[in-house]
Amino acid sequence: MKTLAYAAHDSNEELKPFSLERRSLREDDVAIDILYSGVCHSDLHQARNDWGGSQYPMVPGHEIIGKVTAIGNKVTKFKVGDNVGVGCMVDSCQQCDPCNAHEEQFCNDGMTGTYNSKDRVTGEMTHGGYSQRIVVKDKFVLTIPDNMDLAKVAPILCAGITTYSPLAQWNIKAGDSVAVVGIGGLGHMAVKIAAAMGAEVTVFTRSESKKEEANSLGAKHVILSTDKDQMSAAKKSFDFILNTIPVPHDISPYLNTLKIDGSLVIVGVIGELPSFHTGLLLGGRRRVSASLIGGIKQTQETIDFCAKHQVYPEVEMIKMDEINTAFERMKNGDVKYRFVIDMDSLK
Amino acid sequence: MKTLAYAAHDSNEELKPFSLERRSLREDDVAIDILYSGVCHSDLHQARNDWGGSQYPMVPGHEIIGKVTAIGNKVTKFKVGDNVGVGCMVDSCQQCDPCNAHEEQFCNDGMTGTYNSKDRVTGEMTHGGYSQRIVVKDKFVLTIPDNMDLAKVAPILCAGITTYSPLAQWNIKAGDSVAVVGIGGLGHMAVKIAAAMGAEVTVFTRSESKKEEANSLGAKHVILSTDKDQMSAAKKSFDFILNTIPVPHDISPYLNTLKIDGSLVIVGVIGELPSFHTGLLLGGRRRVSASLIGGIKQTQETIDFCAKHQVYPEVEMIKMDEINTAFERMKNGDVKYRFVIDMDSLK
Repeated sequence: MKTLAYAAHDSNEELKPFSLERRSLREDDVAIDILYSGVCHSDLHQARNDWGGSQYPMVPGHEIIGKVTAIGNKVTKFKVGDNVGVGCMVDSCQQCDPCNAHEEQFCNDGMTGTYNSKDRVTGEMTHGGYSQRIVVKDKFVLTIPDNMDLAKVAPILCAGITTYSPLAQWNIKAGDSVAVVGIGGLGHMAVKIAAAMGAEVTVFTRSESKKEEANSLGAKHVILSTDKDQMSAAKKSFDFILNTIPVPHDISPYLNTLKIDGSLVIVGVIGELPSFHTGLLLGGRRRVSASLIGGIKQTQETIDFCAKHQVYPEVEMIKMDEINTAFERMKNGDVKYRFVIDMDSLK
Repeated sequence: MKTLAYAAHDSNEELKPFSLERRSLREDDVAIDILYSGVCHSDLHQARNDWGGSQYPMVPGHEIIGKVTAIGNKVTKFKVGDNVGVGCMVDSCQQCDPCNAHEEQFCNDGMTGTYNSKDRVTGEMTHGGYSQRIVVKDKFVLTIPDNMDLAKVAPILCAGITTYSPLAQWNIKAGDSVAVVGIGGLGHMAVKIAAAMGAEVTVFTRSESKKEEANSLGAKHVILSTDKDQMSAAKKSFDFILNTIPVPHDISPYLNTLKIDGSLVIVGVIGELPSFHTGLLLGGRRRVSASLIGGIKQTQETIDFCAKHQVYPEVEMIKMDEINTAFERMKNGDVKYRFVIDMDSLK
């Protein structure tokens, strides 16, 4: 079906209107009219080919909220009119150990991304949420509970699962001391989710001015990471640190603030991790890891958790034709904390 | 009591005979006649001040096996004639959270090392196992079960606990796939202990010639780390990697061989960890950590485990006056796998 969209046509051009053809329904497909599409920093990276491998035209968007308009003849889990979501993946091999363990993001054969990926049946490139509609295999469609504010849910499909997953994986529970490094799209969700889990949340920030914001998001404490005394006083304080800084940086000052057996988990795609002294691990059997989005089952768990605790990202609604300005503002850190496109604006 | 020993008197001199005074028994002290003293690579590092902070004269040695000759009047756990051991620590604050959690190696106030450390009562420097006798607080004295071959036990007090501790901490159990990097003093114990735990053990080595040795130690598989095909075939194979390489090195090739949620744990004092790509963690939620010896309770557990499974280090017995040659040979990797000094040779 002919579908309006916004696409990148080159790594150094602005996004422009584009028309694409959504496939006819396969027996396990769900057709979705898109209501809202979140704007993730990785959309910008991919549109500009910062990570290599970008193919054009490319329609970004992997934080998708919409309504079911049709279903394939073997679909039983969804019906027309349901509120649904689509996140970072639309397919995987469904046969390997990671897939069988509900960790499709680690599929041995490579997950199929919501955009800039090859469809496993036709080999055509997938196109994402900056469009009027999308057709997705039922197993990769998420249910949005009735009590949710649809206009705010989209970023949960990426920023939400990306931060919920490591918190759940490392068993964060009431009373644990959790620190979050970086308060952007991911970091602000991390604070909210960890607080909703009952953890005592601390935010590391480089600017005094973010203190009030951090508190309002649910952080009990704020540490100015540029203040040596504050950093020194925080030694051996945290069970867990979620590090959302999106660029290469020295993790040493943060490692020092972990308790024995504490973990620092990186969720940003930062590339090379700068060298650090292993004494910082040795001195407390500390662990460094990284976490990549999360499986479909856990994404549903994240949505349900957010519905139960009424945890939402802070969003700034934009129109589709404002996307290029939004990209620039996002690049400059000028967004609190996530842009969401009202897809009604794309006619 | 006047005690013969061998001491380093300077960072660039050979060890020489030395006479020291062992303290009179405090109420919780155990006096021990030393039978065997293991030679750890860290003895060489400390004697030569490779890590800084060395004070001279220094009597190295923290893998000590001996017989109780006298006890303080409040000691109930030991009696004269008992076979006992002393490892890397002889005291700690006994009050902080790590000490209360039986992790004296992480004592907030700093553990007291068996040598080159300040005694917590007098402030005098401690002296280690390259001596006729030692006096140690009862809580830091280990029981050696009757069924053990005393001549072989000493290295368990450091090489044993250092490798047993992470294997136990990460819950290695029968059927787990464990890889060991580096087959020296630590590595060969890691293979034996992991195999005794029921794990399927693989050894990474750079030389084809070590294959047979690795198998004889208990490794089921050997991977030549210089062979790209073998490394590639090992992708996503291991639950756990114990990395015993004692110098800075790129861990990337090993990270790639970890399964999802697998851990690579460093036990060498390697200093700065060279930069590596976080995609290697991100692609499987892999973890990097480091582990430092182990607490006294776990050291006893290690000894009891080795007694039960009759796991011993491979030792080459030397005389006290051969220590300088042994240091040189150890530096050149020319020992299979641990020197032990027969302290009877020091008269």
